[in-house]
Amino acid sequence: MIMAYIDVSMPIHPQMMVYKNKPEKKPIFIQDNKLELGQSCETIITMNVHTGTHMDFPLHMMIGGKTSTDFDPNELIRRVKVLTILNTDKILAEHLMGYDLQAGDFILLKTDNSLSDTFSFSFTYLTKEAAEYAVNKKLAGIGIDALGIERDQPNHPTHSILMAANIFILEGLRLQAVEQGEYEMIALPLSMNGCDGLPMRVMLQEVK
Amino acid sequence: MIMAYIDVSMPIHPQMMVYKNKPEKKPIFIQDNKLELGQSCETIITMNVHTGTHMDFPLHMMIGGKTSTDFDPNELIRRVKVLTILNTDKILAEHLMGYDLQAGDFILLKTDNSLSDTFSFSFTYLTKEAAEYAVNKKLAGIGIDALGIERDQPNHPTHSILMAANIFILEGLRLQAVEQGEYEMIALPLSMNGCDGLPMRVMLQEVK
Repeated sequence: MIMAYIDVSMPIHPQMMVYKNKPEKKPIFIQDNKLELGQSCETIITMNVHTGTHMDFPLHMMIGGKTSTDFDPNELIRRVKVLTILNTDKILAEHLMGYDLQAGDFILLKTDNSLSDTFSFSFTYLTKEAAEYAVNKKLAGIGIDALGIERDQPNHPTHSILMAANIFILEGLRLQAVEQGEYEMIALPLSMNGCDGLPMRVMLQEVK
Repeated sequence: MIMAYIDVSMPIHPQMMVYKNKPEKKPIFIQDNKLELGQSCETIITMNVHTGTHMDFPLHMMIGGKTSTDFDPNELIRRVKVLTILNTDKILAEHLMGYDLQAGDFILLKTDNSLSDTFSFSFTYLTKEAAEYAVNKKLAGIGIDALGIERDQPNHPTHSILMAANIFILEGLRLQAVEQGEYEMIALPLSMNGCDGLPMRVMLQEVK
């Protein structure tokens, strides 16, 4: 008996939560239904690649930064550690110090963001000091249950610090259904080269 | 040492192969680059959900058919059998009879389609007789290396027959790098409800 994976992806739909509630960031779905004509029904979507659950590539925040080209999806089929950090709107280096993190660890941050399906302008984010700590610890990746891994820091230092160290950034996770612990993750983005971000599906299976 | 998965997904880009080379089926990428303004770079994509590697839901071909709502992605994390059927533009029931297929099997059809990255109007497809055979055999799903699982059959009987039997249909696979045999498949579509199809990433790992 194979244990089911838990889906920690955000459903994509026209009314979904988007960054800062900007209307232009809402995905658009057009259903072209020609079934009555003996033809087919096909939906056309228009969406920002940073919609819902997605990964960032350096070009998102850095001039001349790397894109999704040459990304190997095997990188995101791996063990991860879910850390639960509640009752704060800023994740500090001190929060991460409370865990036994090893070089190569990939962490997913479960915060108060997972409690709501609406965008909060005071969402919990990862501070630049915590990003520096992650670099020093040689983490492989960080995921968070917010549409952005940072807010209100001029020049996006959390992004830049992590990207410069080739630490993967996953955003828009929905972690309400998972507890702190170790999981096998399958995180597969669509196959698109040259992009600053990629929408993805993320599944977790608890490690017993 | 974990063995890598083989990516059998079709890269999505503006010049990619689309069904019948219809210009309106080509995906559109708009890169909104505001990095010079101290902001970010974000790509917006417009695409038909039946672009590249994707799955079909009954609404694609049947009035009132089921959509992606309630689809459980665990269904497509499973064992599959790749069958190599070359030198024909029609897969007949007789082709499938050559294999020891069991109830619950999920098959991926590697055909001459995998030899080319351009659309062929005479692409290899699954005939309605082969679809009926699949239903009798109680297969769980069929994937094919064509953008459609059928062509030139009035009223899309291959689709209808498979859909009526709840047999999953995966299209747009790229199987040139895999040989006939058994594989563990991870096929994850984006999380979108109410759709007639879903774009996806598909990975295969050989079973030794």
